[in-house]
Amino acid sequence: MSNPTRRLAEFCAHLRYEDIPEPVVARCEDLFLDWLGSALAGASQHPIAAFARHARQMGPADGPSEIVIDGSSSSPYFAAFVNAAASHVVEQDDLHNSSVLHPATVVFPAALAAAQDKGVSGRELIAASVAGYEAGIRVGEFLGRSHYRVFHTTGTAGTLAAAVATARILGVDTDTMIHTLGSAGTQAAGLWAFLRDGADSKQLHTAKAAGNGLLAAYMSADGLTGAQAIFDGPQGMAAGMSSDADATRLDADLGTRWALAETSFKFHASCRHTHPAADALLAAMTEHGLKADDIATVTTRVHQGAIDVLGAVDVPHTIHQAKFSMGTVLGLIAVHGVAGLTEFDQLALTDPAVAAFRDKVTMTLDDEVDAAYPARWLGRVDIETTDGRRFSGAIDEPKGDPGNTLSRDELEAKFTRLVRFADAADDTETRALIDRVWALRDIESVSALRAAG
Amino acid sequence: MSNPTRRLAEFCAHLRYEDIPEPVVARCEDLFLDWLGSALAGASQHPIAAFARHARQMGPADGPSEIVIDGSSSSPYFAAFVNAAASHVVEQDDLHNSSVLHPATVVFPAALAAAQDKGVSGRELIAASVAGYEAGIRVGEFLGRSHYRVFHTTGTAGTLAAAVATARILGVDTDTMIHTLGSAGTQAAGLWAFLRDGADSKQLHTAKAAGNGLLAAYMSADGLTGAQAIFDGPQGMAAGMSSDADATRLDADLGTRWALAETSFKFHASCRHTHPAADALLAAMTEHGLKADDIATVTTRVHQGAIDVLGAVDVPHTIHQAKFSMGTVLGLIAVHGVAGLTEFDQLALTDPAVAAFRDKVTMTLDDEVDAAYPARWLGRVDIETTDGRRFSGAIDEPKGDPGNTLSRDELEAKFTRLVRFADAADDTETRALIDRVWALRDIESVSALRAAG
Repeated sequence: MSNPTRRLAEFCAHLRYEDIPEPVVARCEDLFLDWLGSALAGASQHPIAAFARHARQMGPADGPSEIVIDGSSSSPYFAAFVNAAASHVVEQDDLHNSSVLHPATVVFPAALAAAQDKGVSGRELIAASVAGYEAGIRVGEFLGRSHYRVFHTTGTAGTLAAAVATARILGVDTDTMIHTLGSAGTQAAGLWAFLRDGADSKQLHTAKAAGNGLLAAYMSADGLTGAQAIFDGPQGMAAGMSSDADATRLDADLGTRWALAETSFKFHASCRHTHPAADALLAAMTEHGLKADDIATVTTRVHQGAIDVLGAVDVPHTIHQAKFSMGTVLGLIAVHGVAGLTEFDQLALTDPAVAAFRDKVTMTLDDEVDAAYPARWLGRVDIETTDGRRFSGAIDEPKGDPGNTLSRDELEAKFTRLVRFADAADDTETRALIDRVWALRDIESVSALRAAG
Repeated sequence: MSNPTRRLAEFCAHLRYEDIPEPVVARCEDLFLDWLGSALAGASQHPIAAFARHARQMGPADGPSEIVIDGSSSSPYFAAFVNAAASHVVEQDDLHNSSVLHPATVVFPAALAAAQDKGVSGRELIAASVAGYEAGIRVGEFLGRSHYRVFHTTGTAGTLAAAVATARILGVDTDTMIHTLGSAGTQAAGLWAFLRDGADSKQLHTAKAAGNGLLAAYMSADGLTGAQAIFDGPQGMAAGMSSDADATRLDADLGTRWALAETSFKFHASCRHTHPAADALLAAMTEHGLKADDIATVTTRVHQGAIDVLGAVDVPHTIHQAKFSMGTVLGLIAVHGVAGLTEFDQLALTDPAVAAFRDKVTMTLDDEVDAAYPARWLGRVDIETTDGRRFSGAIDEPKGDPGNTLSRDELEAKFTRLVRFADAADDTETRALIDRVWALRDIESVSALRAAG
């Protein structure tokens, strides 16, 4: 077995709440609230009801773990499964830049389900979640850009993130954590093929990553053994699913670099690859006093990953597809100034002004932007106006990035918008849920969030 | 979407029992009995109890589908999950040569669980199983040798095989079958990394392939959409997991070539890659009147796939590993004349004569054998005796291959050996189970096999 694998396992198995710096703990609570809002906002969206029905058909009638979208309960496996599907569908959940991983939607469903099953403290839930973020982000970085071109890293690396968080809740030792990584890695799956059809697989990927990761942890704790060299062995993840894997990323700076704190909140309700250009366009339009009608063309200069993921969507046919359409996102920004859930729901497919603006937008690969990616997501747009003027817009940290993050007030406002969008809770419960998350570290035994709210 | 994908889906969605030639129906029953024997024999083996416990913890207390290893019941998902794990552990389940797929252990658990859930006829179960075999084998052939070098095809292609069989039970149309393929393909996983540690992932792979495939079918029937070009699209299975994929294999000769009938039964209780050499050694020893002590060295000339899978096991530490040790298998053959379940259980790790013979065995790549593979699994051994004589052994169709298959009497004898090995049923129930399978096509509504036996 490689040393990086063992060191990663050892760190994750032994990470104590007391070892985590206070700002990282606080950011973990921020990310948890942001995740809960995404899950509640997803409750009414297609295809989430199908996941809930599947859990009812294949799982038990109730259990120790909460399905947050409706306050019902199930076994840990199916609670994680439904909550993970729900928290990824409105494209408002967090993203870690250099790994291109959405950690919250896979880590928190698994960790919460296991925490409620075992009745551990809020501090244990936080420590387990931090372990899941640190591991999952490093696995995503290890798999590299070649992996992300074909695989949905949140499905693949996400399985290991969920597994580590769950195993930390279960209190496993280093050897069992290695088995957990092995059994999670050999289940890792998720292809981008669905994107060009606007199919529902993105939710299936997060549901299965959370569920399969949780399964790997529970079954490893019960004696199931896994591969020792799942990452860099000759028949491991790198051999099968990457051509630029770097095993030194697996255990780099454990305990000194806190990758969780690098995670970005999503401000716009679209694919994160559209955010740098959206912010750059907004900045340029504000600076130069431009309106949508003033603009003849917008060229967004992007990294290759954006072209790989967004290139397939030309004219979106579903709201979810519209979130992957650069032209639609910039159209909402240019015409309405906002690309939030409500704008996508009510305007993205039907507003003729947005459609007209969409056709003005092109993407082109930019060497500088591409070289900075994925560590930094640079926004660069070139604008030509109808009267022949040319402007450029540039931002180096999209809104929500660690250097341009959301305050607790902004996070509460976003949470409230998400809950109201889905009519998921009344104002009293919304407030109670926020307060409960801000007090997460003081909970002695994690129980249902909604009943307790 | 590629035409091969649609044609495969159309064939599988519409395959009727009446369209299947009688010898293929009969062979399907043969394979079903062979599968049931493997599942029953696996009941008492590590780590199967952990799968059953997981199903109890995460699934319902009972349900419409049978867990054959103990006669209990669960939801279709968890019945498929446990039965698939159990039927692959003793390495006695079937194998299709050119796809290197073990079809039974993924197809029958899913098809049986869905058939019991829906109460369809035995003929519908047979038609669905045939569809699963035809699809899964073609997907395995499509993924090619490069895939099998790193991925356990029974985990990956097996997910699609299970999905197709389940979807055929559910009676979906062509479009829904395409969605099913998409949702199954994006869950396809399973790496060989576990093999060098003798870890338990092989059972995890079959359990998850059957369960995930079943999930894909049930959720597609409930409206979940999947990628249209899951096989050969630019971000599909071929792009991510193969360098020699051939999409023309997906729909080649549908309805005229019956791949199910090409499937081999396992005679020896070891990895199929050891069987050609085992039969060739046995033939040469019989022909020349050799005993184990007469032999100084055995060189087995093999295909690359055998070296990839078996090369990692030098001195086996577990019985399961011993089944992947060419030297151990040939040692059992040379010393005891048989490499069955009982011999592995009682002799493979402990008999000094077997260990001594193991050290006389080497493997070498043979161009002729490699060129014939995987369509044909040729057995070639070169023997040098202690008194300096040299002999060669050669077989072109290992025992159990279609041209050297097992009769119904031999299949009944194998089934009885498997059941007795695990003390899984008394002689009366064993006979009743055999009779029930031979009458499968006359069952009006598939219910529990064991209760009805």
